[in-house]
Amino acid sequence: MTSVLEMTGETVDMVNVIAGGIAAPQGFRASGVHCGVKKKKKDLCLVVSDVPAAGAVVLTTNKVQAAPVVVTREQMDRSRVFRAIVVNSGNANACTGDRGMRDAREMVGAVAAALNVGRDEVLVSSTGVIGQFLPMAAIARGIPQAAASLSAGGGNAAAEAIMTTDTFVKEYALEFDLDGVRVRMGGMAKGSGMIAPNMATMLAFVTTDAAVDPGVLQRALSRASDRSFNRITVDGDTSTNDMVAVLANGTSGAPAVAEPDGARYETFYGALEQMLVTLSRMIVKDGEGATKFVEVVVTGAADEPSAVKAARAVASSSLVKTAIHGEDANWGRILAAVGYSGIDFDPAAVEISFGPVPILRRNYRIDFSEEEAKKVLAGKEITITVNLHMGDAVATFWTCDLSAEYVAINANYRT
Amino acid sequence: MTSVLEMTGETVDMVNVIAGGIAAPQGFRASGVHCGVKKKKKDLCLVVSDVPAAGAVVLTTNKVQAAPVVVTREQMDRSRVFRAIVVNSGNANACTGDRGMRDAREMVGAVAAALNVGRDEVLVSSTGVIGQFLPMAAIARGIPQAAASLSAGGGNAAAEAIMTTDTFVKEYALEFDLDGVRVRMGGMAKGSGMIAPNMATMLAFVTTDAAVDPGVLQRALSRASDRSFNRITVDGDTSTNDMVAVLANGTSGAPAVAEPDGARYETFYGALEQMLVTLSRMIVKDGEGATKFVEVVVTGAADEPSAVKAARAVASSSLVKTAIHGEDANWGRILAAVGYSGIDFDPAAVEISFGPVPILRRNYRIDFSEEEAKKVLAGKEITITVNLHMGDAVATFWTCDLSAEYVAINANYRT
Repeated sequence: MTSVLEMTGETVDMVNVIAGGIAAPQGFRASGVHCGVKKKKKDLCLVVSDVPAAGAVVLTTNKVQAAPVVVTREQMDRSRVFRAIVVNSGNANACTGDRGMRDAREMVGAVAAALNVGRDEVLVSSTGVIGQFLPMAAIARGIPQAAASLSAGGGNAAAEAIMTTDTFVKEYALEFDLDGVRVRMGGMAKGSGMIAPNMATMLAFVTTDAAVDPGVLQRALSRASDRSFNRITVDGDTSTNDMVAVLANGTSGAPAVAEPDGARYETFYGALEQMLVTLSRMIVKDGEGATKFVEVVVTGAADEPSAVKAARAVASSSLVKTAIHGEDANWGRILAAVGYSGIDFDPAAVEISFGPVPILRRNYRIDFSEEEAKKVLAGKEITITVNLHMGDAVATFWTCDLSAEYVAINANYRT
Repeated sequence: MTSVLEMTGETVDMVNVIAGGIAAPQGFRASGVHCGVKKKKKDLCLVVSDVPAAGAVVLTTNKVQAAPVVVTREQMDRSRVFRAIVVNSGNANACTGDRGMRDAREMVGAVAAALNVGRDEVLVSSTGVIGQFLPMAAIARGIPQAAASLSAGGGNAAAEAIMTTDTFVKEYALEFDLDGVRVRMGGMAKGSGMIAPNMATMLAFVTTDAAVDPGVLQRALSRASDRSFNRITVDGDTSTNDMVAVLANGTSGAPAVAEPDGARYETFYGALEQMLVTLSRMIVKDGEGATKFVEVVVTGAADEPSAVKAARAVASSSLVKTAIHGEDANWGRILAAVGYSGIDFDPAAVEISFGPVPILRRNYRIDFSEEEAKKVLAGKEITITVNLHMGDAVATFWTCDLSAEYVAINANYRT
């Protein structure tokens, strides 16, 4: 399966995009196999570090938490050093009670045995249908098979094995220098239900051969997740299985990122944010039934929380998304979404542009050419800019249009 | 145009459904005419009380407020006694700046002149497209015409004149006794964008020949709106033009409802809540592209705010709504929606039923017949009951399914 590296050409100073996905960093291997949770497609993957790696995790805030989420939290409470992540797709092991907990722990034990590592050194994740028990015989057969096929070239297979309704593999890798030493970072993600993200499980896994203190890694991951995955979704709308995890194994030999500030931290953080934003954008581009990628930029906000609230309201509005789908320059819906976002602003001061075309100017002045607006809206990637003229704060959200196909996909997902 | 009285057969003790809509109470007249805001359909209506009536209003909380909303708030600041309500459809007079304010005030003045009442005695409301100026010449011609055609039989024409994308007229009237004296209440509403209510302007107007103190009327209206219109929509998701108004003119001769408690108040409040819930249900039934009416009942909540939050999350979930559209008994989406609603509960204690069919029992036990569930889901009206087993509180929300047709309707509304 081809990846979508070519879709995302972003680079930051001194950061180069490289091949290899999640297994690109030194000392990491990955694999993806079919074990029988799904009928035919790959459904089980392993990501393994050759040496103990610092780990950081962000988990769903949903009160209904799948068994692997609970088990991963237990693992994080015991240790911050890990060797492996195991993920199955096709079955979420959610709402499965005590038996689900036993099954998730059994997955951990089977990986520890197959890799000859400690039980405390394994993180576990699942995605797929809710309320059904995992086929443990298949999983038990699959884990040794996945362990046997681990390789430095296994990133793409691993990324393929975590897909559910995704239509393309989401992986990305980059390299950058920390104090003159080359460091690599690799990542993969799954998720495609951006239009109504409340049940679209979002998983992302990142590896790096940088050396990072576990506490610093957790801090960087929380901040970068907030500015990436939390800007493609509605606050609080999380699935039962959402998980983002990073492993940092230090095999690059670069000096450690030991403090949450300073130039070394900022370089590492910048790369991590670029990684997560890139994976986030891939998820939006794979939105169920999506035909257009929409970037909502709110500028001139009084402060960042206001900018985030306004951008989220616009990006989450079904009526804005259907208008974009219909290529209709409906600025009224955008302004009304800002109006109910809960922020303070002066509606008459707001200016709205679609791409480079000013649509709404101050004092509700409208003098755009419908033709020019149509040209922008006919594109596959559309930027909506809303200037509140209240201050200097900015926030960006990413979303997609809402098409009739979305409804068709979601009306019959379970059956 | 036929009304949908026959769709709503609810009665409360001593309350009888009667004909006549908004003009059913004594001392009220109404009319609906075509003046030229729309191409052909009725677009202007008047509701007039023969004597000064106590007024109460609930207005949109959106920061972007249409000119008629601002003007109605000004009117409420001056007086609580009114003679008339004027409403146009086809143009929202929103985001129209100073000129929009002048136009809204001019509508008030024209009605005062045509009816020979005070300028302070007129409420004004608009619904339709945002960002365009009202065609004031047409409105100025239409107002005397509407005044000339006022009648006690004009309720249906008035209800027709406030429609935008509505597919049927929404009106309702009932009678009940206050201390042995017969009292009438009439109402009409418009609104149909239930699936994504953030821009679906919701208007409702109610008249009664009961005598009610203005402060008591306001209190009753606020509470009843909270338990009706606010239970078919997402908190804070309000349009620029939303308005609910009640006029009480006392011509029944019944003793006044002067205090916000006691048997007389409770009887009046019960009738008002029944009126608003009935109009709310009509709006849901006219949901854009809707094919099924869905009632979400949360029981066993720790307190009412928790019940409301949980019911709102389930009723607002696009994924629940698409599953209902696909007639899929997807209880996992319902449980996950409760999970991100923000309330405290034990997921393993939750029980979910579709109609009379238990789907999910305690401890995630699932043993329903797919056939029986399908039978319930094939119906036009579906009740989802979620028992949290945390306490005694209950809340009901009303929503509809999410169909592909919704997207088609909203993708090209403006153009």
